[in-house]
Amino acid sequence: MKHLLNMNDLEIKDIDTILNRALEFQQNPSHQFNKQFTVVNLFFEPSTRTKMSFEMAERKLGLHILPFEAGTSSTLKGETMYDTVRTLEAIGVDAVVIRHEQDQFYEELMSGLNLAIINAGDGSGQHPSQCLLDLYTIKQEFGKFEGIHVTIVGDIAHSRVAKSNALALKKLGAHVTFICPPEWQGDFDATSTWEEVLPTADVVMLLRVQHERHGKENDFLKELYHKEYGLTIARYAELKPSTIVMHPAPVNRDVEIASELVESDKSRIFKQIQNGVFVRMAILESVLKERM
Amino acid sequence: MKHLLNMNDLEIKDIDTILNRALEFQQNPSHQFNKQFTVVNLFFEPSTRTKMSFEMAERKLGLHILPFEAGTSSTLKGETMYDTVRTLEAIGVDAVVIRHEQDQFYEELMSGLNLAIINAGDGSGQHPSQCLLDLYTIKQEFGKFEGIHVTIVGDIAHSRVAKSNALALKKLGAHVTFICPPEWQGDFDATSTWEEVLPTADVVMLLRVQHERHGKENDFLKELYHKEYGLTIARYAELKPSTIVMHPAPVNRDVEIASELVESDKSRIFKQIQNGVFVRMAILESVLKERM
Amino acid sequence: MKHLLNMNDLEIKDIDTILNRALEFQQNPSHQFNKQFTVVNLFFEPSTRTKMSFEMAERKLGLHILPFEAGTSSTLKGETMYDTVRTLEAIGVDAVVIRHEQDQFYEELMSGLNLAIINAGDGSGQHPSQCLLDLYTIKQEFGKFEGIHVTIVGDIAHSRVAKSNALALKKLGAHVTFICPPEWQGDFDATSTWEEVLPTADVVMLLRVQHERHGKENDFLKELYHKEYGLTIARYAELKPSTIVMHPAPVNRDVEIASELVESDKSRIFKQIQNGVFVRMAILESVLKERM
Repeated sequence: MKHLLNMNDLEIKDIDTILNRALEFQQNPSHQFNKQFTVVNLFFEPSTRTKMSFEMAERKLGLHILPFEAGTSSTLKGETMYDTVRTLEAIGVDAVVIRHEQDQFYEELMSGLNLAIINAGDGSGQHPSQCLLDLYTIKQEFGKFEGIHVTIVGDIAHSRVAKSNALALKKLGAHVTFICPPEWQGDFDATSTWEEVLPTADVVMLLRVQHERHGKENDFLKELYHKEYGLTIARYAELKPSTIVMHPAPVNRDVEIASELVESDKSRIFKQIQNGVFVRMAILESVLKERM
Repeated sequence: MKHLLNMNDLEIKDIDTILNRALEFQQNPSHQFNKQFTVVNLFFEPSTRTKMSFEMAERKLGLHILPFEAGTSSTLKGETMYDTVRTLEAIGVDAVVIRHEQDQFYEELMSGLNLAIINAGDGSGQHPSQCLLDLYTIKQEFGKFEGIHVTIVGDIAHSRVAKSNALALKKLGAHVTFICPPEWQGDFDATSTWEEVLPTADVVMLLRVQHERHGKENDFLKELYHKEYGLTIARYAELKPSTIVMHPAPVNRDVEIASELVESDKSRIFKQIQNGVFVRMAILESVLKERM
Repeated sequence: MKHLLNMNDLEIKDIDTILNRALEFQQNPSHQFNKQFTVVNLFFEPSTRTKMSFEMAERKLGLHILPFEAGTSSTLKGETMYDTVRTLEAIGVDAVVIRHEQDQFYEELMSGLNLAIINAGDGSGQHPSQCLLDLYTIKQEFGKFEGIHVTIVGDIAHSRVAKSNALALKKLGAHVTFICPPEWQGDFDATSTWEEVLPTADVVMLLRVQHERHGKENDFLKELYHKEYGLTIARYAELKPSTIVMHPAPVNRDVEIASELVESDKSRIFKQIQNGVFVRMAILESVLKERM
């Protein structure tokens, strides 16, 4: 594939190709291209795990990485993102990994540029590399998506993870339900309750409560959220033996999930992070292979 | 050469050597020294393209690069630049690339230090690596400098690009004219008008309007500047077929140049950026060769 | 050793092992592990030389280094240090070098994690890699520690260098005295005066006056400190011929030491910085060897 922008663009066979390649990287993470490729990670929003995960994947692939600090860049001088990326292309950069607060930031980069764009999170839009690593983690556990019952819990309306994952999981044959406060339901229909979900869920996918996006006027009460929508110790005890718990991290301990459960038996939270490196190696390889 | 500080220090043969070596790097960019050299890019002012360009050149030369973040460095603890650079020398750094807001910042580094200094922009002083890549781009186009008519347009008084380029181009036999608002003329004489220049210019070299240096009291009106001093679509149409348009970037679209012209046929703006990597490889090699 | 947290944990033979290995690195700095290790330098406080020194040591050891910018990381989203480091472990990081303003920050990292922790300065606690490079510098000069008279001058109470060094030097048989303003004496006993120390000191170890820690209410007078506690030109003249002067840097010129003396014959200030790279190579190798 030429770019990775959103999950809508990927067909089932594209997803399968990436997940299969990620498995090969997990089994043998060393890899070198015949050509020396150069990438830049343009993170205009704070991030530890996504940026670090891409950085690790890039090093394992033997890529050159030019550092970019959003805080001291020419975008401070009012440069457009197109001009910044066009400049990187002229310098000889082959691919850029971008996180930006603007939805579909990549639209303005779709014409006139000859480098690969990987979306690492666009505003309240999508987060396709997170989605693919979530899919990888589910397939690793269950070997398939058909008939798997996935419950997504939290701020569905504003979450780029929820959007990407719900779309892809349905396409792949999974049964997706949602639990969320009414004000965070957005365009999603069919919400459930913990009571309905607990006996049947194969995957409980918790979303991060994004305090920094909602602002203070939201009058958010952490304890209340945990009690109503969080994975409490009591709810955890009612899950099926085979059920797994996922979260894109960083976790708000005792909000989305009880602190004691973050590294519990059913938790795949750090497994997801580990898988992310292999999935991102597969993504990067896929877009760079087109440029050999 | 031991350092690259300003264009005054370079004789014509030094310039020729760098331009010729840059051409070799363009034809074959792979290169390794017998010794492992280490460099640091000390950018005390925001920059994307110059810093990225040096970073790319350094990677293509196989150098080790130690990251430096001006915002979290010991200069915050009141350390002098001499002590910072002397420290880097003790750590084992072979060359430093420095951008700093102070004119001739390098003067205090000229005694007692045994590492190479490359000036990547000193205050309102010079910007020699930009000058050399501009020269490279002109030579690439015309094969010579003698008799070439170069018009430099904009804030001549405060531009380090204007100073470096005017000096070098005259030394190399080019004919240099200026177009600028009267208040930005500085010590430069002989200003022209667009009407005089349009029929004869071989190179139209636009300077960036540095809003961040002039401040708000300048009461700068972008539309007015564009109308009086910018390369408008009407003026572009009157240029000779062989004329090229240059700009050090980042461009203020519709100020120095009409947005539609940034990637027009005559524009060499992104070509300049591309050439910058090869020229900087030649500069770095030149100062490091002295340390083999 | 598995981690390097503080000097209390190291026995004399552990110190000897590191100093001997550092000497080997000084003689032959090239080294490659059979395995590709990855490290992250987590500096939550400003630093140039310690961070740069670790970065250089890591490159000389052929390690992969993932960049971490405290200012844009997920700790801004309220993530605990445990979760940040646990995330890095999941990504595949083998060792983290941490500087943090909190004393004994590493306590919360001691269970549940499987990567090596190197303390690069904890609050007003310790700074063990600085201590080891100071020991290396003293041994380089005198070949031994027994009977060596070391005078530590400055803010003993708040200095992590003073704490680490006094502890280790006494353990190794050196004679340690202190000169300090009464309000900065802390729990240390036995303070001396310059008059007592000048005829006998083998090592004068100056501490940095940490303006940024004391704040303005301290009403610190630089000239007064220099006159009472600084190494003035007059005091320097009274030192024994074999005496050396040390300082962890960055130096406040004309406060702890007269500016003219920073690079004087007896000064080992930049030698310490140079030695730091070899000592840190030995530290990193020591913790990574356990993970082969």
